[in-house]
Amino acid sequence: MEDEKPFAPPGTAHELEEGTAFTPKFDADGLLTCVATDARSGDVLMVAHMNAEALAKTLATGEAWYFSRSRRALWRKGEASGHVQRVIEMRVDCDQDTILIKVEQIGGACHTGRRSCFYRAVPLGNGGAVTLEFRDERVFDPKLIYPKGTR
Amino acid sequence: MEDEKPFAPPGTAHELEEGTAFTPKFDADGLLTCVATDARSGDVLMVAHMNAEALAKTLATGEAWYFSRSRRALWRKGEASGHVQRVIEMRVDCDQDTILIKVEQIGGACHTGRRSCFYRAVPLGNGGAVTLEFRDERVFDPKLIYPKGTR
Repeated sequence: MEDEKPFAPPGTAHELEEGTAFTPKFDADGLLTCVATDARSGDVLMVAHMNAEALAKTLATGEAWYFSRSRRALWRKGEASGHVQRVIEMRVDCDQDTILIKVEQIGGACHTGRRSCFYRAVPLGNGGAVTLEFRDERVFDPKLIYPKGTR
Repeated sequence: MEDEKPFAPPGTAHELEEGTAFTPKFDADGLLTCVATDARSGDVLMVAHMNAEALAKTLATGEAWYFSRSRRALWRKGEASGHVQRVIEMRVDCDQDTILIKVEQIGGACHTGRRSCFYRAVPLGNGGAVTLEFRDERVFDPKLIYPKGTR
């Protein structure tokens, strides 16, 4: 794996917030948080992480690459499932530690088979135990899409 | 500060993904990632963190509370600025480590004065240095809203 350090180090808070230099602020583990939304509906599809290499590949290819914290591995979204994300627009937040990508999502973003990972509502205002409410149906069968537990 | 432990511990991956028990999976620092979107437009406004107390207060009050990692403090959104977030709907993701709230945002979500923290686009496909493109104007003057550097 090549060692990519394609991004300049973060500057002052003012430079980060009001500048035009893209200097992403990776955390202690070398990661940014990335929110992916459906470019058409605006729905939040998933939240994942990118290291510098995943971010550079996403910028270069226009397809979403992430870094899996559980597998400690670079991860091209849709590599196993075919459910790739074509990036229509990328945004960065004020302090440049979070990325937003608006994507064309093939199939579903969630490995459980739903279009979005956020398929359950958390009802407000209840004390005590909270019971989740399912809101979204599966759009694919994960057993058919992910052989051998891959994603 | 009271010690709130209002949430049951996470179960198996299957229970987390397909169950109806809300058992949020806080990270090693006791935090969840939270994405706030504009309930009307669907735009992503900000990404921040909640500890168990912030999550419990958000559920109980229907207004967004966060935990500031930089200030190590519970933070009622809008406490200094008046730019509170009324939660219309809360969702949780497949593995219950990320929360999505759809909010009515008074004023702007971003301390820089913009409606959303994601006010700059990152152009795709360019090698080398990336120049950000400003997309959103300020909706308030942070100098007037945050006296003495508060948020």
